Amino acid sequence: MTSPPNSQLEIPQITSFINPVLAFALLEMAMENFKQFLFALSAAVTVGFISIIFVLRWVFYFKEGLAWDGGLAEFNWHPVLIVTGFIFLQGIAIIVYRLPWTWKCSKLMMKFIHAGLNILAFIFAAISLVAVFDFHNTKNIPNMYSLHSWVGLAAVILYSLQLVLGVCIYLIPITPTYLRAAFMPLHIYSGLFIFTSVIATALMGITEKLIFGLKDPSYKDSPPEATFVNVLGVLMVIFGGIILWIATRPSWKRPSEQVLRSPPTNGGGSVGTKVSQQTDPIDPKGNGDARRRSGKLEDSGQVN
Amino acid sequence: MTSPPNSQLEIPQITSFINPVLAFALLEMAMENFKQFLFALSAAVTVGFISIIFVLRWVFYFKEGLAWDGGLAEFNWHPVLIVTGFIFLQGIAIIVYRLPWTWKCSKLMMKFIHAGLNILAFIFAAISLVAVFDFHNTKNIPNMYSLHSWVGLAAVILYSLQLVLGVCIYLIPITPTYLRAAFMPLHIYSGLFIFTSVIATALMGITEKLIFGLKDPSYKDSPPEATFVNVLGVLMVIFGGIILWIATRPSWKRPSEQVLRSPPTNGGGSVGTKVSQQTDPIDPKGNGDARRRSGKLEDSGQVN
Repeated sequence: MTSPPNSQLEIPQITSFINPVLAFALLEMAMENFKQFLFALSAAVTVGFISIIFVLRWVFYFKEGLAWDGGLAEFNWHPVLIVTGFIFLQGIAIIVYRLPWTWKCSKLMMKFIHAGLNILAFIFAAISLVAVFDFHNTKNIPNMYSLHSWVGLAAVILYSLQLVLGVCIYLIPITPTYLRAAFMPLHIYSGLFIFTSVIATALMGITEKLIFGLKDPSYKDSPPEATFVNVLGVLMVIFGGIILWIATRPSWKRPSEQVLRSPPTNGGGSVGTKVSQQTDPIDPKGNGDARRRSGKLEDSGQVN
Repeated sequence: MTSPPNSQLEIPQITSFINPVLAFALLEMAMENFKQFLFALSAAVTVGFISIIFVLRWVFYFKEGLAWDGGLAEFNWHPVLIVTGFIFLQGIAIIVYRLPWTWKCSKLMMKFIHAGLNILAFIFAAISLVAVFDFHNTKNIPNMYSLHSWVGLAAVILYSLQLVLGVCIYLIPITPTYLRAAFMPLHIYSGLFIFTSVIATALMGITEKLIFGLKDPSYKDSPPEATFVNVLGVLMVIFGGIILWIATRPSWKRPSEQVLRSPPTNGGGSVGTKVSQQTDPIDPKGNGDARRRSGKLEDSGQVN
């Protein structure tokens, strides 16, 4: 059974409601919405960069630096690559469709960027796993005994599965549209769930490393390294929180291809057209996406 | 500026599209949807109950049991109350509006149940904090040095803020509707974010406790307690994952009061009416909620 396309249900109906008052309201909301998006994006990028600086300072200032020698300096690749790749790059990959200045690029190009960033994040994660297994084996420390390792390995396996399925379903041209549609909610949910699990795993990793790595003064005595790395943990939670906020705002979604590619036609006359021109890059062209783009309209249904 | 109500935009338009074919398709989707919901709910409750059994077995079989003596048996209240209250009860509180058999209850009653469960979860969390602070003070262990304690306390503070704001905005009758509408996306996001942070904090707590509590054999040697409690951690991740899945399915939302209270009127004649009767409790009455309830329709916009 195939679902009737959304556009058949909505587009001709909503357009007939575009009138000057509504168009002006949508325009105002769109501009406010765009400023809020820019603020959230700047916050995410800033917190992400500070996290990377923190993990680098941790390994270079407080720990043994970086090397590939089977020792502690090799272990240090693990947090560096996880924070840089598996958290920061994955976070950016998640929200790359939300950047309004990319809405003029083709969907296919954006898919390649989304997939490319995720593949890069996966490579970082894979190398970081090699570093920690190599360190454990050199030092005769057992592998895979901790909850950190269990959840972390599960996240990496699920991430690789998500990558393979994502490429097969959304980048191979022969995949039928109904399959793409049916898989999309699961693709989005899994992406956000794996991203969250990775951050939770990193918090466990920090906890382990500060307990094992700090002796005299120990973690309990709150030496500067402990406080510094706790702050790194909090930064990662904040980064994750902002990425999840950006990814789950309906009004910040990339408009459908139909909206982006179709010539502006609506029932609102000149004012409706004016909205289409002025509200770029948040573009309520008075069709099926207009209601979703305004966000607040959609959310106002269940507040009584 | 107030937003035009959703219903003005949609309801009269969508109803005119209810025809026998679409009505039958919606009915089929609704039944399938309801089965999927029941499966997800059963899974969440089962995994939640198993987690509670696991934490009880941990403290009674592997640890010192429960007491209020300033010792390890008092500490054990901490994981027991967190898993039972701050994770299980909070999870159920989050999805209580989704239970279709409660859609016949008044919204106000459901709000009281939602708030009541959250307040109960907060009390459990507060007592669990008293237990751990009391234990630390008795044993001269510093408080608030670990990332676990930082993120955990932040989660409890944010949770209390969410409770107070939630009660003020959604239970005090004088709060204006536009404020309720404006705050709703933040209320939903914060609820899910705090819930996720609590689980992440619990994973750090397990990591700490297994490292500090297991000596000869240590955590690294994977004694039965370590493996058992790692499984508890995985169960909590799965529980969290199912709750987040249930909470974020658009088609599983409680229909708006307008839909639930209005007499069935649609343009589909007898077939439309039949759908209204048969598809209870997932009830596509052919108005503004019908498209959202079908779920797949909404998600099919961005799959090309």
